[in-house]
Amino acid sequence: MPRPPSRRIVSSLGEFELIKILQQTLANCSLPSPRGIGDDAAIIKPTSDDEWLVSKDLLLEGIHFDSSYSSYQAIGYKSAAVNISDMAAMGGTPKFLLVGLAIPPSHPLAHVQALYRGLRDLCKEFRISVIGGDTVASRTDVCISMTIIGKVKAGHALCRGGAKVGDSIYVTGTLGDSGAGLRLLQHRSTQQTRQLPKSVVRFLIQRHLHPTPRVHLGQLLAKRRLASAAIDLSDGLSGDLHHLCEASHVGAEIEMSKIPISSQCAKYIKNRHESRIDLTLASGEDYELLFTVSPHHQQPLKRMAARLGHMITRLGTICAHQQGLHLLLEDGSRQGLPRNSYEHFPL
Amino acid sequence: MPRPPSRRIVSSLGEFELIKILQQTLANCSLPSPRGIGDDAAIIKPTSDDEWLVSKDLLLEGIHFDSSYSSYQAIGYKSAAVNISDMAAMGGTPKFLLVGLAIPPSHPLAHVQALYRGLRDLCKEFRISVIGGDTVASRTDVCISMTIIGKVKAGHALCRGGAKVGDSIYVTGTLGDSGAGLRLLQHRSTQQTRQLPKSVVRFLIQRHLHPTPRVHLGQLLAKRRLASAAIDLSDGLSGDLHHLCEASHVGAEIEMSKIPISSQCAKYIKNRHESRIDLTLASGEDYELLFTVSPHHQQPLKRMAARLGHMITRLGTICAHQQGLHLLLEDGSRQGLPRNSYEHFPL
Repeated sequence: MPRPPSRRIVSSLGEFELIKILQQTLANCSLPSPRGIGDDAAIIKPTSDDEWLVSKDLLLEGIHFDSSYSSYQAIGYKSAAVNISDMAAMGGTPKFLLVGLAIPPSHPLAHVQALYRGLRDLCKEFRISVIGGDTVASRTDVCISMTIIGKVKAGHALCRGGAKVGDSIYVTGTLGDSGAGLRLLQHRSTQQTRQLPKSVVRFLIQRHLHPTPRVHLGQLLAKRRLASAAIDLSDGLSGDLHHLCEASHVGAEIEMSKIPISSQCAKYIKNRHESRIDLTLASGEDYELLFTVSPHHQQPLKRMAARLGHMITRLGTICAHQQGLHLLLEDGSRQGLPRNSYEHFPL
Repeated sequence: MPRPPSRRIVSSLGEFELIKILQQTLANCSLPSPRGIGDDAAIIKPTSDDEWLVSKDLLLEGIHFDSSYSSYQAIGYKSAAVNISDMAAMGGTPKFLLVGLAIPPSHPLAHVQALYRGLRDLCKEFRISVIGGDTVASRTDVCISMTIIGKVKAGHALCRGGAKVGDSIYVTGTLGDSGAGLRLLQHRSTQQTRQLPKSVVRFLIQRHLHPTPRVHLGQLLAKRRLASAAIDLSDGLSGDLHHLCEASHVGAEIEMSKIPISSQCAKYIKNRHESRIDLTLASGEDYELLFTVSPHHQQPLKRMAARLGHMITRLGTICAHQQGLHLLLEDGSRQGLPRNSYEHFPL
């Protein structure tokens, strides 16, 4: 008797049967050959007044995700979200996704299907077509590799290198939620966690597992040329502001009191007696946009954000390169902004 | 005293210092931000009468490569070659490469630099720019993920699905060299191997480690519309002919006596008493092109190949789908063509 599908393991299928099942899982988010899956390469047809944006992310088990506290569906969703967020940071419209998956053959097929369902959910939301990829065996860990292709009107892409002295520094949404969510996932059953309202725990974990790529706002910033530079917050505010300032050859000063945090994150900080600075500056994966705005674009930006319901907050100002990067604390003191973001290869 | 560069390990560098070193290694094969490395995405500008081809490959330590018998430079070269070969199979011109690398932080920096030197060599040869990627830590194995973007004149891409009944089946180069080279690498110091001339061993190993993507011939086939369908031989002639025939809904008959083998491979087969059928049909990674040609394109194809010095061999004929795939043996007997190519997730 054949096993029920959910208990089958990957090695009980051939590579090509697996690919067929995954194409079914993707349903109308996949494009068939010759425009998509099934040939040596996918073919895409550009329109003449657009530029294409291409970005690639590699996500490793035990480094970027941990299936002991994250479902495979959430892992699939987040892997795609991280990649789509790069398009948001460039002001582009994500169009096509290529998905590489390396997985030990002993994994249940259900894991792979859940992973694809997760990324399909996000592809549906943003009308992205999965046009190709590669599905191979690995010896121990799961490895996910995504390449996203998007488009932007020629000359309108938001780059990191355009910030000018005097520009204001803005951020979308709230910071620290994802970092708090991660810590809650890692210490889920502690006494302290149980003291927090369930809705708070759920919200923060959800923000870690299901970040929202700020595609729509990124598109508006690019289309209306409202931002001089932009980056998405993957490494943490501190590290990513350093990246933006280095690319733009400028310095920056931000005010600690201005950093937007959610009421849920505030409750978490109180419950844990954690450092608000550490959580909002150094923990990454919020996938909010950090962007700079010239003085005469501030009013149009604020009007647009208010009208369309986008939460944006002004954090500080771009200054000259030689002034460095500083943080203005709530007691009025001023300190250098440390570069303490996530480091893959720590010194 | 700082360690000499060659002895430094990856974790002695920050992620961004590592990226800088790798950009230096790539030298003039990399494009800087905003067109390449250094922003959230690379920006590429299409021209209006081209289509873009995109392909992605994932290569895993212990599955696709083994550093116990392959240098990191060879691993880098081959990873790029595999990807570029997909462009050749579509008749495209490779233009841009994105390189994802996951590596345990304890690896020597010299390994990473050698890997990048290897892919740089091939990028130089084909004038490909490395425009982005991702460099992350892994727990155990090295994982390489490449995405290649190429272009082709609109409507000219060679797909797998275009073969018609009566078309001839052609292959470039010689088959089986890579498989023989792999077996020699795996059993380098056996008595049998020592009986083979060194030049034979070197040739076959070189063909395994440094396959030649058939970009130029693929471009000609596409430009002059000489091929009705094409695929590159990564899984082996048998498996890849099945892929092409399935996509085209046709059958095929090939003659064993026509399969081109090199004199070196013939010596290897004699030395090992190996099955010529197994080696040339079932062992993969030759990265030659398999393509089909309609009757009235055969003469122009032969003239073009002769003039430009491309080795091509006619193997057989495309027949109706219901006739299936067959192999005509040297004794005149006929057998079904087994689908015994490399299988990532064997049943």
